[in-house]
Amino acid sequence: MGSSKKKVVIVGGGFGGLSAAKSLGNTEFEVTIIDKNNHHLFQPLLYQVATAALSPGDIAQPIRTELRSYKNINVVYEEVMDVKKDRNKLILTDGEIEYDYLIMAPGATPNYYGNDQWQEYAIGLKDLNDAISIRERVLKSFEKAEHNIINNQPFKHLTTFVIVGGGPTGVELAGSISEISRKTILKDFKRIDDKEIKITLLDGADRLLNSYKKSLSEYTLKSLEKMGVEVKLNTFVENIDEDGVYTSGGKIESSNIIWAAGNKAAPLIEKLNTDVDKMGRVKVNPDLSIPDHDNIFVIGDASYLVDPNGVEVPGVAQGAIQGGQFVAKLLQKKIEKGKYFTYFDKGNMATIGRAKAVAEIAGMKIKGISAWLIWGLIHIFFLIDFRNRLKVMLEWFWYYVTFKPGASLILDNKGGSEKED
Amino acid sequence: MGSSKKKVVIVGGGFGGLSAAKSLGNTEFEVTIIDKNNHHLFQPLLYQVATAALSPGDIAQPIRTELRSYKNINVVYEEVMDVKKDRNKLILTDGEIEYDYLIMAPGATPNYYGNDQWQEYAIGLKDLNDAISIRERVLKSFEKAEHNIINNQPFKHLTTFVIVGGGPTGVELAGSISEISRKTILKDFKRIDDKEIKITLLDGADRLLNSYKKSLSEYTLKSLEKMGVEVKLNTFVENIDEDGVYTSGGKIESSNIIWAAGNKAAPLIEKLNTDVDKMGRVKVNPDLSIPDHDNIFVIGDASYLVDPNGVEVPGVAQGAIQGGQFVAKLLQKKIEKGKYFTYFDKGNMATIGRAKAVAEIAGMKIKGISAWLIWGLIHIFFLIDFRNRLKVMLEWFWYYVTFKPGASLILDNKGGSEKED
Repeated sequence: MGSSKKKVVIVGGGFGGLSAAKSLGNTEFEVTIIDKNNHHLFQPLLYQVATAALSPGDIAQPIRTELRSYKNINVVYEEVMDVKKDRNKLILTDGEIEYDYLIMAPGATPNYYGNDQWQEYAIGLKDLNDAISIRERVLKSFEKAEHNIINNQPFKHLTTFVIVGGGPTGVELAGSISEISRKTILKDFKRIDDKEIKITLLDGADRLLNSYKKSLSEYTLKSLEKMGVEVKLNTFVENIDEDGVYTSGGKIESSNIIWAAGNKAAPLIEKLNTDVDKMGRVKVNPDLSIPDHDNIFVIGDASYLVDPNGVEVPGVAQGAIQGGQFVAKLLQKKIEKGKYFTYFDKGNMATIGRAKAVAEIAGMKIKGISAWLIWGLIHIFFLIDFRNRLKVMLEWFWYYVTFKPGASLILDNKGGSEKED
Repeated sequence: MGSSKKKVVIVGGGFGGLSAAKSLGNTEFEVTIIDKNNHHLFQPLLYQVATAALSPGDIAQPIRTELRSYKNINVVYEEVMDVKKDRNKLILTDGEIEYDYLIMAPGATPNYYGNDQWQEYAIGLKDLNDAISIRERVLKSFEKAEHNIINNQPFKHLTTFVIVGGGPTGVELAGSISEISRKTILKDFKRIDDKEIKITLLDGADRLLNSYKKSLSEYTLKSLEKMGVEVKLNTFVENIDEDGVYTSGGKIESSNIIWAAGNKAAPLIEKLNTDVDKMGRVKVNPDLSIPDHDNIFVIGDASYLVDPNGVEVPGVAQGAIQGGQFVAKLLQKKIEKGKYFTYFDKGNMATIGRAKAVAEIAGMKIKGISAWLIWGLIHIFFLIDFRNRLKVMLEWFWYYVTFKPGASLILDNKGGSEKED
């Protein structure tokens, strides 16, 4: 390692980190990418794992495999514990690593706005384990409901689902849970009546998909209501416990609460000890570096920037990818120093259900089946590799035709008991 | 539930239990099938999940979904704690259930022959969690080996794999681990040399696949050796601890030990309080009922029977399926009382690697690519549903062409640390 090559260390193998790494692949830099997961996750489809439509392996790929062809890139599967800015060094769980340039792309975690005790009852959706937990909780609730109906015990809290947050993730989860529970899961549970399934989507704002055009928000609201989702706007969560959600509009008894009410920067970012906004995101310089350290960059969901066009770079895949590419070019001097990062908006889209979506692309508003087809094509296209594309297409086609989900497994094989034999 | 219909309770949703349930589907019986897992598992392909070739969802299906179309079948996702033979009642974790007829099909668990403390270091392969544990242990070992090589620490125990037991499962695991580690995983780990990977298959007998014809055992041995597997016959395990395996032929340092040295009946079977063999299997009557209780039957891996042709019914899928069908016919009086169960041997087969397998069908010995194609077709054909068939075919084809495995995910996202952020 005594080479004179400049060392770039990238923290995080999400969209931002991977994009930076690939842009620095086969260059003169010695690149190391560190992640505490061994895989890159295609997060836009994570809700489909949570609702048993896809398997974890369909939307994830080992970071090593993804970067296999670049000779100058090392992949380290470890957790970063600390950043020593003044010694150009990272402390890992087992060892340390020096850098000339540091690109921080640690992503975000669910934001409970100071109420972390809610996390136990209201799972957020950030990684595959969250998705599997949600899937198992939903399936086990149906199992328990059937059991309680047979035994004349209360069961309605088990067939009530509450999703907190009406952004794209909340909308996708609400639509998807409504569809999958009514159209497929219910067929397997003979004693549960369709009428007993209640799905509520809460948001504090006066409309869903707040960042979209108003007409799309209205379309989304109507579509969800038609699908049997109860949408409660202008509604604030006051407390969450094992019994359910206490809102400004009353209590909802539920043992299936999902938290989709926003994110904050990953806690690691605090180690940078620099100025952050109220979501914990680093207020980066216009070239994505941090104040006082022009060899450290923060990209993706963990950074906050209003670009020269006055656009706040959004916490979406495109923001992270473009940030990664920008920093990689800057290091290679393909961009002159002093040039600022600008975000190019390729559009936004969210699915509501089968053959229903909304999209905003190049100023156009698109909704219904055409938005859904565009959504499907784009997501298939950006999926990690050809194999996953084929598999996911097959799963979707199969589900579209048969309404049979692909992955309704409970891996926690305890059958209601805490003991294993 | 106060109907006058006869109640059949089936314990276990494996091949035996499911076959009994389907054979009793839409009959005059009120059937309940109980399993502590929510899914039926296609066990013959479980080793492919352990070696990251397939995803859990590819080889498993919820029992409810599988039996959805039968109106007279209830599915209960619970664990059976006790059997009250004299009161015709089962005790579940939460409640109890009465039966007129009981079909016990609880399957088997790995047999450590009194050395259960070895289990911690040498995982057996019986369910999806075992397969995922093995997959993660193998992948993490490569990660740790790469880490140790960089840091000049010992690593050979991490790239040494020991499989104990040279039956079909042991052979399939050894061949598959050899192939996947050398041809695919290694491409992602730039610092590990092919020569450092050591795979050892141990067996106490003087040949592999003891129940097959001798020439097939020899072919299997040669094929495995050509693939770089070291096969040690006439070798007994004396101890296993965190450092490795101590055998009659010396110590092998390894942190990747897999136990495939045989099974014993599931512990639940002890609750029947009836005569068992040394593998804990119930010595059933010729009609698969148990002594003194002609309304209780034991089928599949948990039963021991030599049939009227002098054939010991083997602990394989076909033995369980045929047992389930037999008991279902007996209850429906399609078979007259007093008639004995006979096992029909449809053949045996085991894969060694890509385009290599051995099979014995109708007295014929088949080996090489033809056996492998037959193996593939039969396994695809018997897979649970059409969707899984398509997916698994696609995975195999993809892997055959690219050598890229489908599911190399580590879900335990701790990156070498015990802490999560």
